[in-house]
Amino acid sequence: MISISVIGYGYWGPNLARCVTEAAKCDLACISDRSPACLAKASKRHPSALLYEDWHDALSNPKIDAVIVATPVDLHFEIALAALKAGKHVLLEKPLAATSAEAAILIEEAAKRNLVLMVDHTFVYTPAVRKIRELIANGTIGDIYYYDSTRINLGLFQRDVNVIWDLAVHDLAILDYLFEAKPLAVSASSAGHIRGSQENMAHISLFFPGGINAHLNVNWLAPVKIRQTLIAGSKRMIVYDDLEPSEKVKIYDRGVSLDSGAEQKHKLRVSYRIGDMWAPQLSVKEALLTAIEHFVATILSNSVPITSGVSGLRVVEILECAVRSFKQRGTPIEINPLRRAS
Amino acid sequence: MISISVIGYGYWGPNLARCVTEAAKCDLACISDRSPACLAKASKRHPSALLYEDWHDALSNPKIDAVIVATPVDLHFEIALAALKAGKHVLLEKPLAATSAEAAILIEEAAKRNLVLMVDHTFVYTPAVRKIRELIANGTIGDIYYYDSTRINLGLFQRDVNVIWDLAVHDLAILDYLFEAKPLAVSASSAGHIRGSQENMAHISLFFPGGINAHLNVNWLAPVKIRQTLIAGSKRMIVYDDLEPSEKVKIYDRGVSLDSGAEQKHKLRVSYRIGDMWAPQLSVKEALLTAIEHFVATILSNSVPITSGVSGLRVVEILECAVRSFKQRGTPIEINPLRRAS
Amino acid sequence: MISISVIGYGYWGPNLARCVTEAAKCDLACISDRSPACLAKASKRHPSALLYEDWHDALSNPKIDAVIVATPVDLHFEIALAALKAGKHVLLEKPLAATSAEAAILIEEAAKRNLVLMVDHTFVYTPAVRKIRELIANGTIGDIYYYDSTRINLGLFQRDVNVIWDLAVHDLAILDYLFEAKPLAVSASSAGHIRGSQENMAHISLFFPGGINAHLNVNWLAPVKIRQTLIAGSKRMIVYDDLEPSEKVKIYDRGVSLDSGAEQKHKLRVSYRIGDMWAPQLSVKEALLTAIEHFVATILSNSVPITSGVSGLRVVEILECAVRSFKQRGTPIEINPLRRAS
Amino acid sequence: MISISVIGYGYWGPNLARCVTEAAKCDLACISDRSPACLAKASKRHPSALLYEDWHDALSNPKIDAVIVATPVDLHFEIALAALKAGKHVLLEKPLAATSAEAAILIEEAAKRNLVLMVDHTFVYTPAVRKIRELIANGTIGDIYYYDSTRINLGLFQRDVNVIWDLAVHDLAILDYLFEAKPLAVSASSAGHIRGSQENMAHISLFFPGGINAHLNVNWLAPVKIRQTLIAGSKRMIVYDDLEPSEKVKIYDRGVSLDSGAEQKHKLRVSYRIGDMWAPQLSVKEALLTAIEHFVATILSNSVPITSGVSGLRVVEILECAVRSFKQRGTPIEINPLRRAS
Repeated sequence: MISISVIGYGYWGPNLARCVTEAAKCDLACISDRSPACLAKASKRHPSALLYEDWHDALSNPKIDAVIVATPVDLHFEIALAALKAGKHVLLEKPLAATSAEAAILIEEAAKRNLVLMVDHTFVYTPAVRKIRELIANGTIGDIYYYDSTRINLGLFQRDVNVIWDLAVHDLAILDYLFEAKPLAVSASSAGHIRGSQENMAHISLFFPGGINAHLNVNWLAPVKIRQTLIAGSKRMIVYDDLEPSEKVKIYDRGVSLDSGAEQKHKLRVSYRIGDMWAPQLSVKEALLTAIEHFVATILSNSVPITSGVSGLRVVEILECAVRSFKQRGTPIEINPLRRAS
Repeated sequence: MISISVIGYGYWGPNLARCVTEAAKCDLACISDRSPACLAKASKRHPSALLYEDWHDALSNPKIDAVIVATPVDLHFEIALAALKAGKHVLLEKPLAATSAEAAILIEEAAKRNLVLMVDHTFVYTPAVRKIRELIANGTIGDIYYYDSTRINLGLFQRDVNVIWDLAVHDLAILDYLFEAKPLAVSASSAGHIRGSQENMAHISLFFPGGINAHLNVNWLAPVKIRQTLIAGSKRMIVYDDLEPSEKVKIYDRGVSLDSGAEQKHKLRVSYRIGDMWAPQLSVKEALLTAIEHFVATILSNSVPITSGVSGLRVVEILECAVRSFKQRGTPIEINPLRRAS
Repeated sequence: MISISVIGYGYWGPNLARCVTEAAKCDLACISDRSPACLAKASKRHPSALLYEDWHDALSNPKIDAVIVATPVDLHFEIALAALKAGKHVLLEKPLAATSAEAAILIEEAAKRNLVLMVDHTFVYTPAVRKIRELIANGTIGDIYYYDSTRINLGLFQRDVNVIWDLAVHDLAILDYLFEAKPLAVSASSAGHIRGSQENMAHISLFFPGGINAHLNVNWLAPVKIRQTLIAGSKRMIVYDDLEPSEKVKIYDRGVSLDSGAEQKHKLRVSYRIGDMWAPQLSVKEALLTAIEHFVATILSNSVPITSGVSGLRVVEILECAVRSFKQRGTPIEINPLRRAS
Repeated sequence: MISISVIGYGYWGPNLARCVTEAAKCDLACISDRSPACLAKASKRHPSALLYEDWHDALSNPKIDAVIVATPVDLHFEIALAALKAGKHVLLEKPLAATSAEAAILIEEAAKRNLVLMVDHTFVYTPAVRKIRELIANGTIGDIYYYDSTRINLGLFQRDVNVIWDLAVHDLAILDYLFEAKPLAVSASSAGHIRGSQENMAHISLFFPGGINAHLNVNWLAPVKIRQTLIAGSKRMIVYDDLEPSEKVKIYDRGVSLDSGAEQKHKLRVSYRIGDMWAPQLSVKEALLTAIEHFVATILSNSVPITSGVSGLRVVEILECAVRSFKQRGTPIEINPLRRAS
C-alpha cells in the first residue's frame, strides 16, 4: 500500500485526490496547500487525510511514500527536487518543469536514488490515445504520414504560461507516446492579441525523420471549442475527436494509390481509395485514474513509467524550441539530439 | 452586349460557359479547346457557339470583345498577353499567372491598352465572403485579431501545381478582399507524402502590420473534408463553414474583457464574454455568375474589377514567398513592399 | 431558514442533497434511505446531516419543515401523504404520483393544510425552456402550430415503469409549462421488444384546441442519443437541442407566406420565407438548484409553485390516457376536462 | 434496344429523360408535355427526340416500346391504362395511382397483356437502402424490432396532395422493400396549419406481425431538413442519414442483453451492450439511373420488377388507410389482407 501526499489543492488537485482514493494499492495520506480555504475544502471531502499548509511537512512525514504535485509549474522543480531528496517517488502535473535544465536535474536525481519520476501526460492514459497507438503498432495505419491537431476554445487566459505551455503540451505528450521517431526541428508562429497577456494563439510545425510531420494549432481565443486530430498513414487515416461523446476515434479506409506504368512516363497517376469507416468501442475508464494506478504500479514493480521524466524532458525541450522559433516568426529551430540523448 | 470567348473547356470551362449564357449583357460567342472531345461536348451544350481548336482563332475574331481563360496555369501568361495585344478584355482563372513577373507584365499591358484584366478569385463573389466583409466594414467584428482557415479533403492530386497553388490561393484571395492591411512576411511548412507528387499538405502563417495574423491549413490527403475559417476581432468572432448548407456564417458575440484595477497590480484579470450567436440569411446566387457579371460590368463602365490584376499579383507573390519559406522549413520570408507597390 | 429532509438517496437523491446544500435559505437537516450502504455514502458527503433508515423518523422530527422525495414512484403517495399530514411541505420527483387518483388526494391534502406541494418537473427550470417560454410569451414565435419532440437513447430499462412514464413525462411537463391550452385528446402507439420488460418505445400525439398539436417520440432502445424538439409558430420556429453544449435554443426566422389574389382563385400560392437564425446566450445555472430555490421561495412566501401539484396531476392524467390509447393501437382517448378542472 | 417515351416534362421529367439517355439498352424516342414551354426546354436538351403536346400521340407511335409517366398523380391512371392497352410497358412516378382501385385495375391490365408495370420507388434503388436490405438479409441486424423515420423540411406545399402522399410514400416504399412482413394496421395523426392547404405534418404508426413496428414523421413545415431513419434489431442497429455526404449508413453494434437467473426471479436484469460502429462505403451510382436500367432489364427478360405494380398497390393502400386514420385522430385502421392478396 503506497501512501500518497497530494501537494496543491487548487484547480486540478481535487481530481488527483479523488482518484488516489479510488485507485487500488494506495491511499491518500495527506494534502498540502498554502491556502487555508483550499485545505478547508480538502478536509470536507477527505476527512481522514492529514492537512499541511507547508508542503515541507508532507516531505518530512516518514509514512509518505510518494507525492503528486499539482502546483503552478514554477514550483515544480523546487518541490520535486526536495521530495526526491526526501526519498519520495514523484508524479508531477504536466509540464514536468519550467525549463529543460530543471527537468534534466530531476531525472538525474531520481535515477541516482532509484525513485520513480513520472509526469502526468494525462492524454496518454485515455482509451482513445491508447487505441490509436495500438492501431499504429499493429500496422492498421501503415507508414505514418502526419499528425495534425486543432485544440482551440475560448479558454482560461493564464497569467504565468502562454497557450503552448498550456495546450500544445498535450499534443507533444501524445506525439511522444505515439511516434517512435522524435522531431528534428520545429517552426512556430504565435500571436498575443490581449495587451498585457501572454501569447493566446500559436501554430507549431514539427519535422520528423523520414518526411513525417506534425502540426499543432492551439488557441485560447476561439469562438468554438475544437479538439480534433487527424493522423494519416499509407494504409488508413484516423480522425480523433475528443469532444465526440462516444465515437472519439474513427478509422477511414482511405488514401491514394499510385499507378505508374511504362506508358505513363510523363503522367503519374494518383487516384483515391475510399472504403469503409470504423469507430471502435472504447473503454470509459477515467484517464487520470489509469495514470495514478500506473504510477503506483511502477513504484511497486520498480519499473519506468510510460510518461517518464525523460519523456517529460523531451516535451519541455520542444516547448522551449517552439518559443524560440515563434519569437523569430517561424525560423526553424533544431531540436538538439545530443542533449536529448543524455 | 459583350461577346465572350471561353478558352479551355476541360474541368472548369463548362461552368464558365454556362454562366456566360446566364449572365446579362454578354453572350457566349465561341469556345476554344485543343481537345476535339472537349469541343464535341461544348458543341452539344452550346450549339450556337463557334468552336476553335486553336485559341489564336478566337483572338483574331474581331467580334470577340473579351476572353475567359480556363487553361492550366502555365498557359495563362501566353494566352492572356496575346489576348490583351489583340485588344480583348481578359478574365483569368485563379491564380492569375504562374509567376509574379508574368503577372506584372500582364498588368502593365492591360493598363497601357486600357483593357480590363481580372482574375477569377471566385470566393470573393460568394454571398458568405461578401457578408463577412460587410460585418468587418460596419464595425460588427471590431479590430481584427486573426484569420485561421482549414481547407482540407481527399483531393485531386495535380501534376503541375502543389496544394498551396491549388487551395491556399482561395484563402489568400479572400484575405486580400477582407483585410485592408497586406501581409509583411510569411512562414510556411509543407510535406509531400506521395513519391513523385508535389507537396500535398502545407501550413502557412502570415504576419500583418499591427499584430494581425493569419494561418492557412491546406491538405489534399485528409480523410474528411473541412472548409472552416475562424475570424476573430475585438468585439465578435465569426465561424465561416462553407460546407454548411444554410448557416455558412455564424457570428459569435464572444471574446475576452480585461479588468485591471489598482488592487490588481500584479494580477491582470482576463475574463470571458459569452453572448448570443447569429447566422444571417445569405443570398443563394451562384458566385461564378456574380463574377462574370462583374467582369462584364467593369468592361461596360471602364472601371477596375474588385479582383483586379493587381490583387491577382499580390496573391501570386505570397504564393511564391510561401514556397520559398517551406523549402527552408518555415524560415520567414519578407513580402517585398516595394515590388508590391510597383 | 427551511430545514429539509431528503427521502431516498439512490440514483437521484445525491443530486438533490447536494443542491439543497448549495441553495440559499435552506439547510439539509436529514437524509433517509432504507439501504445502509446508501446512508453510508450520504454520511461521507454530508457528515452533519441526520441519517434515518426509516423515513417516518424524518416526518416525526419537528425541526424538519419540508421533505424532498426521490424514491421509486410507487412510494410517492404514501410518503407524501404522511408528510403532509405531519405538516411538512413536499417536493416530489417526477412524476407526481403513480395514478391521477393519488395525485388528486395529495393536492386536496396540501390545500387543506395550506402546505406547498410541488413536483420536480426539472426541465421547466432549465434556462433553455424558460427562454422558449419567454419567446412564446413576447410574441416572437407568433401563433403556436406544433411541438414535436424526439427523446431517445440506449437507456436504462426500468422494471417498474415504461418508457413514457420515464421519458415522455419530461415533454408533458414542458408542454404544461409552455402552452396555455391543455390537450383535449391523445393517441399513442408503443412497443416492447424485450421479453419480460415494459414498453421501451412509444409515439404520442396530443390534440389541443385550435388545431395545435404535439408529438412525442420516446425510446430506450435507440442506437444514438437525441434530445431534439421543434416548436413552430406562425412567425418563427425553434429548434431546441438539449445535447448542444452551448447553442441549445435556435430561433429560425422561417415559415410560409400565403398569397391569394383575384387572379389565383384556383391556385393558392404558398411560398417560403427564409431569414436569419439566432441562438440566444443562456444562463448555465443548474436547473435542479433553481427548482429547489423555487420550492423554498414558495414556502417562505406561501405561494403556489410553477410546477404545482395540479400541473403534476395534469401530466399524470395524460400519461394514463396515453397508456390506455397505446393498449388499443392508437385509439384516441379524450382527456377528461371535468376531472382536470377539479 | 427499348424505345422509351417520357410523358410529363415538368419538375421530374427532365431527370428521367436524362437518365434514359445515360442508361444502356434503351433510347429516348420522344417526350410529351402539354406545355409548349416545357417542350421547348426538352427540345434544347434532347434535339433528336420527337416532341408531342398530346400524350396520345406517343402511345399511337408504333416504334415506342415503353412509357415513363411523370405527370401529376391524378393523371397516372388514365395515361397508364391507355399505354398498357396500346401495348406499352409502363413505369410510373410514385405513387403508382391516386387510389388503390385504380392501382388494381392497372395491375390486372398489365398482367393480362404480359407487360411490365413498374412504379418508381426511387429510394429502393439507392445504394444506401440496398445495403440495408443486404444487412437485414445476411443476419447482421438480427430479428427486426422497428423502423423509425423522420423526413422533414421546409417543403414545397403541394396543391393536390398532402404531406403523406408526398413524403411518407418514400418510407412506405422502403419498408415494402426491406421487410418481408406487411403491416396489419395503421394509426396516424396529422395537422394542417396553413388555411386552405392540405395537411402539412403527419405521424404514422404501422403495426406488423410479431410485434415489429414502424413510425414515420413527415413534415413540410419544419425549420430544418432531416432525413434520418433508425432500424433496430436484436443484434445491431442502423442509423441511415440520407443527408450525410459519405457515411449514410452507420451500423451500431449495440443493444440490450437479458440476464435472468434463479436468484433473480423478481428482478429481471436488462443491461446494455455497446460495441463498435461501422460505416460501409457505398456506391455513388444515381438511384434513378439504376431504376431505369432495372425497368429496361425486366422488359428484356420478361420478369417482374422489384417495385412492381403490386408493391405500388400495397403502398397506396397504406396511404389510404393512414388518411382514414388521421381523419379519426389515430383510430387504428386494419389494412385488409384479403384485398391485398388479390
